[in-house]
Amino acid sequence: MLPTDSALSVELARLPELVEEFAQQLPPPALPEGHPGGLPLARYIDHTLLKPEARPEQVAQLCEEARRYGFYSVCVNPIYVAQAARLLAGSASLVCTVVGFPLGATPPRVKVYETRACLDAGAKEIDMVIPIGLLRAGQYEAVLDDIYAVASATHAAGGLLKVILEMALLDRRQKIAGCLLARAAGAEFVKTSTGFGPGGATVADVELMRCVVGPQMGVKAAGGVRSLADARAMLSAGANRLGSSAGVKIMRELEAEN
Amino acid sequence: MLPTDSALSVELARLPELVEEFAQQLPPPALPEGHPGGLPLARYIDHTLLKPEARPEQVAQLCEEARRYGFYSVCVNPIYVAQAARLLAGSASLVCTVVGFPLGATPPRVKVYETRACLDAGAKEIDMVIPIGLLRAGQYEAVLDDIYAVASATHAAGGLLKVILEMALLDRRQKIAGCLLARAAGAEFVKTSTGFGPGGATVADVELMRCVVGPQMGVKAAGGVRSLADARAMLSAGANRLGSSAGVKIMRELEAEN
Repeated sequence: MLPTDSALSVELARLPELVEEFAQQLPPPALPEGHPGGLPLARYIDHTLLKPEARPEQVAQLCEEARRYGFYSVCVNPIYVAQAARLLAGSASLVCTVVGFPLGATPPRVKVYETRACLDAGAKEIDMVIPIGLLRAGQYEAVLDDIYAVASATHAAGGLLKVILEMALLDRRQKIAGCLLARAAGAEFVKTSTGFGPGGATVADVELMRCVVGPQMGVKAAGGVRSLADARAMLSAGANRLGSSAGVKIMRELEAEN
Repeated sequence: MLPTDSALSVELARLPELVEEFAQQLPPPALPEGHPGGLPLARYIDHTLLKPEARPEQVAQLCEEARRYGFYSVCVNPIYVAQAARLLAGSASLVCTVVGFPLGATPPRVKVYETRACLDAGAKEIDMVIPIGLLRAGQYEAVLDDIYAVASATHAAGGLLKVILEMALLDRRQKIAGCLLARAAGAEFVKTSTGFGPGGATVADVELMRCVVGPQMGVKAAGGVRSLADARAMLSAGANRLGSSAGVKIMRELEAEN
């Protein structure tokens, strides 16, 4: 699936060496311009509802809240993308969805089909899960293939791709490799967690991700971001997007301060 | 997606009334012929490894154990179907996989595509998850549509379909409706749980499922079946298939008895 003789295969060949370099010593964090205070807090938040038991009326409420507070997006499961896109038409909030979620263990062509179906239905942002077991097994080329396939399908439809690494299941070198693979494949963001794994976003993981991907890529902290203090801690650590099901609570805490 | 004027739309029209009837009083359990002692214990077990961090070498070990003990199948994530089918060629063990797993929240056409990809790669049994939120919202037609689409794709390739209801997220009427919908759609099995939800198989749920689906359908107990005692309790309650990641431990307990 990878184009041969390309910049991508050069990146792949250099990867083990780069992982070792970053593992020995991380470069200092380089933040995107204007980070993180450049926008109102709501514009950093993907307002999220991914519980399998969520009903259409809960999705409708999520969208209403997104309109009211101006969240960057709502993040919903694929069956709810069309409904959310209808409800948010003409608003400032996009529809984000998840692919290969939350296990990451479907083959690339299934993830590509799912991605296209979601983009067709009105999603603008795709949060995909990598094949975690293949990264742990050191199968870098298979992981790059997987991300690259979904990135191509996403970009062809004008979408943006976030790559969920499920950091709680990775050791330090695997975390670094995951970030480098997402960058090499052309994804716009790395994302810490699904919210369904053994752990959520941590300050240490967000800092590591920011150091590895540099200022040009996005870092999304998700999983366990439940308060204004959590949100600020993640932004300070280098995140420029937050996935949270507690968006309304966070906004109320902020209002209570003013 | 449903054929109009068919037996299926008649079933759908009768469904609310049937749910009410079963909720008032369950028929006595009617077990399949020869249940459950008709086969060696291993032939009731889907030897399961669905953790997102599972590596190819763990799948290889799972398949080796399936050959050694003669488990009915191995149940692996879609990325590992081709590997497992290769490793189990010529053995008594099939390859089972999961679709729309574990949230059930992808649209029917994505589940159908995923199902076909898995059957192409060598899977013989498909364990799909229903759209749980739509069942909870009472959208019976949408749920029937979803199961029927996957059942058609599965049967067209000679496969067998199990329908995971995630019982821990359903109330009594929703559990009954889920069983009736799976039966109406032509699935071969209902299955209690994904193993990733808030609860696994219970004796009460397996008994309920068996009473509702009758002797012609299968009932698979999965999630938390970790010992020989658990396995026997589920079979006694009416299950005729067990999903477990503890198959080897269960077989060793059985050997120790003899």
